[in-house]
Amino acid sequence: MTRVGIIGGTGYTGGELARLLCTHPDVEIAAMTSRQNVGARVQDVHTYLRGYVDLEFTEKISDTKDLDFVFVATPHGVAMKEVPALMDQGIKAIDLSGDYRLKDVDVYQEWYGHEHTDLENLEKAEYGLPEFFRDKLKGADLVANPGCYATSIILACGPLLKAGVVDEEIIVDAKSGTSGAGMVPAVRTHHSTCGETIIPYSVGKHRHTPEIEMAVDRFAGSHTQVTFIPQLIPIVRGILSSCYFNLKKDLTQEEVDGIYEKQYGGETFVHHVQDPSIRAVVASNHAQTASKVIGKKVVSFGVLDNLVKGASGQAVQCMNLMLGLDEKTGLNVPGLGV
Amino acid sequence: MTRVGIIGGTGYTGGELARLLCTHPDVEIAAMTSRQNVGARVQDVHTYLRGYVDLEFTEKISDTKDLDFVFVATPHGVAMKEVPALMDQGIKAIDLSGDYRLKDVDVYQEWYGHEHTDLENLEKAEYGLPEFFRDKLKGADLVANPGCYATSIILACGPLLKAGVVDEEIIVDAKSGTSGAGMVPAVRTHHSTCGETIIPYSVGKHRHTPEIEMAVDRFAGSHTQVTFIPQLIPIVRGILSSCYFNLKKDLTQEEVDGIYEKQYGGETFVHHVQDPSIRAVVASNHAQTASKVIGKKVVSFGVLDNLVKGASGQAVQCMNLMLGLDEKTGLNVPGLGV
Amino acid sequence: MTRVGIIGGTGYTGGELARLLCTHPDVEIAAMTSRQNVGARVQDVHTYLRGYVDLEFTEKISDTKDLDFVFVATPHGVAMKEVPALMDQGIKAIDLSGDYRLKDVDVYQEWYGHEHTDLENLEKAEYGLPEFFRDKLKGADLVANPGCYATSIILACGPLLKAGVVDEEIIVDAKSGTSGAGMVPAVRTHHSTCGETIIPYSVGKHRHTPEIEMAVDRFAGSHTQVTFIPQLIPIVRGILSSCYFNLKKDLTQEEVDGIYEKQYGGETFVHHVQDPSIRAVVASNHAQTASKVIGKKVVSFGVLDNLVKGASGQAVQCMNLMLGLDEKTGLNVPGLGV
Amino acid sequence: MTRVGIIGGTGYTGGELARLLCTHPDVEIAAMTSRQNVGARVQDVHTYLRGYVDLEFTEKISDTKDLDFVFVATPHGVAMKEVPALMDQGIKAIDLSGDYRLKDVDVYQEWYGHEHTDLENLEKAEYGLPEFFRDKLKGADLVANPGCYATSIILACGPLLKAGVVDEEIIVDAKSGTSGAGMVPAVRTHHSTCGETIIPYSVGKHRHTPEIEMAVDRFAGSHTQVTFIPQLIPIVRGILSSCYFNLKKDLTQEEVDGIYEKQYGGETFVHHVQDPSIRAVVASNHAQTASKVIGKKVVSFGVLDNLVKGASGQAVQCMNLMLGLDEKTGLNVPGLGV
Repeated sequence: MTRVGIIGGTGYTGGELARLLCTHPDVEIAAMTSRQNVGARVQDVHTYLRGYVDLEFTEKISDTKDLDFVFVATPHGVAMKEVPALMDQGIKAIDLSGDYRLKDVDVYQEWYGHEHTDLENLEKAEYGLPEFFRDKLKGADLVANPGCYATSIILACGPLLKAGVVDEEIIVDAKSGTSGAGMVPAVRTHHSTCGETIIPYSVGKHRHTPEIEMAVDRFAGSHTQVTFIPQLIPIVRGILSSCYFNLKKDLTQEEVDGIYEKQYGGETFVHHVQDPSIRAVVASNHAQTASKVIGKKVVSFGVLDNLVKGASGQAVQCMNLMLGLDEKTGLNVPGLGV
Repeated sequence: MTRVGIIGGTGYTGGELARLLCTHPDVEIAAMTSRQNVGARVQDVHTYLRGYVDLEFTEKISDTKDLDFVFVATPHGVAMKEVPALMDQGIKAIDLSGDYRLKDVDVYQEWYGHEHTDLENLEKAEYGLPEFFRDKLKGADLVANPGCYATSIILACGPLLKAGVVDEEIIVDAKSGTSGAGMVPAVRTHHSTCGETIIPYSVGKHRHTPEIEMAVDRFAGSHTQVTFIPQLIPIVRGILSSCYFNLKKDLTQEEVDGIYEKQYGGETFVHHVQDPSIRAVVASNHAQTASKVIGKKVVSFGVLDNLVKGASGQAVQCMNLMLGLDEKTGLNVPGLGV
Repeated sequence: MTRVGIIGGTGYTGGELARLLCTHPDVEIAAMTSRQNVGARVQDVHTYLRGYVDLEFTEKISDTKDLDFVFVATPHGVAMKEVPALMDQGIKAIDLSGDYRLKDVDVYQEWYGHEHTDLENLEKAEYGLPEFFRDKLKGADLVANPGCYATSIILACGPLLKAGVVDEEIIVDAKSGTSGAGMVPAVRTHHSTCGETIIPYSVGKHRHTPEIEMAVDRFAGSHTQVTFIPQLIPIVRGILSSCYFNLKKDLTQEEVDGIYEKQYGGETFVHHVQDPSIRAVVASNHAQTASKVIGKKVVSFGVLDNLVKGASGQAVQCMNLMLGLDEKTGLNVPGLGV
Repeated sequence: MTRVGIIGGTGYTGGELARLLCTHPDVEIAAMTSRQNVGARVQDVHTYLRGYVDLEFTEKISDTKDLDFVFVATPHGVAMKEVPALMDQGIKAIDLSGDYRLKDVDVYQEWYGHEHTDLENLEKAEYGLPEFFRDKLKGADLVANPGCYATSIILACGPLLKAGVVDEEIIVDAKSGTSGAGMVPAVRTHHSTCGETIIPYSVGKHRHTPEIEMAVDRFAGSHTQVTFIPQLIPIVRGILSSCYFNLKKDLTQEEVDGIYEKQYGGETFVHHVQDPSIRAVVASNHAQTASKVIGKKVVSFGVLDNLVKGASGQAVQCMNLMLGLDEKTGLNVPGLGV
């Protein structure tokens, strides 16, 4: 059994990691840290884990010995303070924050507004999107787990950009459920504010923009410019990202679908479908893409559960690859449907 | 034109007062105070008031001269610090907080946890439920506006208690939209917490309990005991309170409906209906009651928009009475329906 | 008093017309027709109209004599059977369906799938968007009320297209509440289907596409191509349409805002704002636009309540113009805000 | 591997059965029938099952040979036409409709409005609530799966009634998500109707009333009268039932909690908690109870996911018992939490 720890166990992604890992056959949750809940039983804070996680929150991950693997589920800026010690001790780790996603440290500092203090590990961190970078993840020591928006968008855009059939200029109109904003109450996620409306925010300046550009630039021929408009919709879990492209030349609907089928036909967790549906994937690690050709344009949708394939589920998928396990272990269940 | 001021103009009830008063034909909004928005234009904070309220928030109500009427829309404990000065200057006032609702100061101190510092005005404050205490409100100087839950419950319970046909023991299972909790973000009203569930809270110890008991005791023969369970449902506006009674003797459905018709048949804003509906009254000062006889029990529903008939609309209705205006002025529009 | 009738009084737009007209000072609702509710009291079907509309539904509009004005709130294909008789009798009318919106009858037949049988009146119908075509509406006999999506999109796109500063190629990613789909239960609007998700539908083939193109072509220099993706979000009322443009030349944020201010600065019901909000306009005839320059692109948002400015409120606004009344009569209230 | 079939595979409970059974280690889904989707691939209808169920819908369960176990997920009245043939062939079965729940055939006919045509199997059917009737379910041939409301209410009421500490008279104010109403679109579950409100329905005459009474009468000393008010709330999955009792004698909070702990302390799927939460159990077979003593009354809450512990999950739990498997097999995952 691999002994895993979770730094930042109180938040939504920390709790979701515990929810997924507690039934994983090859893993034992050995530690969960929390600043505000030190000493409390995990199942008293996350009551849904009653009967599944028998632990108390600790203050520091170093309070627990003999860990083999650690998930860092803290805000950005905190993760880079935790990772060096883990690497030094030979503990494999996945960071779910933005700290290790952007290879260009200047871009990081521009978008996150503070210095990066762990350039050494930044360099060796792999970007944890198995459907595109699986080989790099097998056996890796440090993985930067993609953002929830970024995952949905890269899945929707990747095949067309790789195929070189669209202009390197994408408009992304993305819609997210409120759990993507985390557990801390705020005006924008106050129910009376967001419960009967849709709220555009960070228009043209969301931090996932450079992450998406960096990722797609790895397989597109040249630099792709992403115009990214995130919006909050009144659902708890789920993202639908609508990505708009200009076709370089005429393509039929079948040809476009064929590009996606070629990319995802062999995948367990990503499916190219006719009618994309958040409900089909919610509560699971599955994601969907769908595409419609409209004249010389294409709209491609990327759909997932922001807490699973958009965060903790994808992290478990990466962990499986890093540990040499079957990628699907502990994740192989369908979405809820209803 | 009556010059009115609103103390506490940033919150939901303050904003709703402005929404209703800005089209009231006999009133001019002359002042709105705010602690956090002093100097800001009202329509920049409450963007829906653009074109309707041309004011800046001031710090203190005394910054504005020649006011005729003031609404106090602050948290409890604050109102009793504002009201004495208003009364001293001969300015009529309505308090929308709980400070002047409970005649028994010991009960106030028990449920609100602090001392009452304005016993003089507490004594003269009238309880602002026009459908039951209209005569007392005509020309009154100070009115305590009922709570939103309390209004829905008293409307549903009053007729049967007045008629003396039910036991003095009521179970109230009440459901409220999230705007009833106010504008300050909190865990319970965080969308991811409350968006796909129903949350019982303050079970058996909500502050509206003594308010309801006090009000109904005024027209019931003896003391009525209220078991009150409030619950948060994922809608923005609206309350449905389900009140359970034991009949003292057998009554038919027609007899029970007759009791309500007798009470409300002549009312503009309260209707006894077959199928109660929040949507039928939302965004309006209308309320509904409905009753079903089930063997020796009766369930009566009280339905309203918590921000209108449950707060600011009822306050305007009271103001009309206090000023000698037609009670319906500025309020006479139907609910949204859809 | 103008005596008005509503053909199709059971549906959402018919009920909403009654809600608005029942407090209109210059109008008397003299007739409402319904196929399924003939003989029923209006206030028993639309319970929110209790105390405001004292009528029974009739079968045919001709059952009522001496009407001055008729709103046709039926499905498309039905309206064109009703309008000729109204015109023959000299009764002014507004059609809220799609029957009189598309001037090109071939385009109508292509998108609606059946023949147009009233070419004579089609020719004389004016398009009822006062903010762009006010002069044509004053005194007009027949007005085609714009679709809800179309209104939001034309308001957001019109100023930039008129100014000639963007390419004639727009991507519109629109989000609508469920009331836009009408009152007939269907799979897509079944709560369990749509309550916790967002559903793209009619991608690239929604009937508002030619309507939008026709309208904007009237003030843009050349033909504008609209790629229109409508989506259903789990709210009852409200539309937010996000419109993406390529700038022909660099413009600052201030220059773009200035174009909108110039267009809407004098309008009562359309405001150019920084943060667009459905809640700010819901339940009112107000609409908002907002724009963000992102590099060489602009995203402009159009926001409204689909049943008011997107349907029945706009129809009342048009009626006021057709009758020579102040355009704001009966509509001059702010949105709910919360 | 046990070969199982599902009669009525298109509906919500049929789809949910497939969702749960497709990862059950001891079971193979060998057949799913559907009236409207004969010949269609299951995963094209229930897109969330892609990769998990590789079957086509058949018309009749008899089209598939060698079944060991059948779930009947049809409307009431249909099930009793299917079960006799299954019993004759020695195929164990669980009926998820109401056909085999009420032992008294006169009560059935009164509440369901038609005759019961399978009295023989009605007699031998066991009521499938493992936490109360586990011993009867082990090895049973036919099980009537409880209704979703009934399960939540019996779990909340059972311990106090068994302990004999409350009057045999219960008020139940229950709230359900819309998926409990099934997949067929209807006015009450149309999003615009139910999306921003709470709707009481079948007040005092819902068919679960006799089912609840029958079940609790089995362990309470005498007949218990249930006043049952169901209400629809705008969530997709989940029930919270609030049950009100009169205590026969004074009991402390600790004593009441102790009664529940004694009943459920050893259970995997039912937990007695302080703060009941639909989100803690949603998407899982877990249920919660919680109790508050308020003077001489007690309110007890029962919480579950209506499609899992309220329907298909409980059916799988029963199947495990009927087949001699560990009761938890295929169900042992926590709720979503968020």
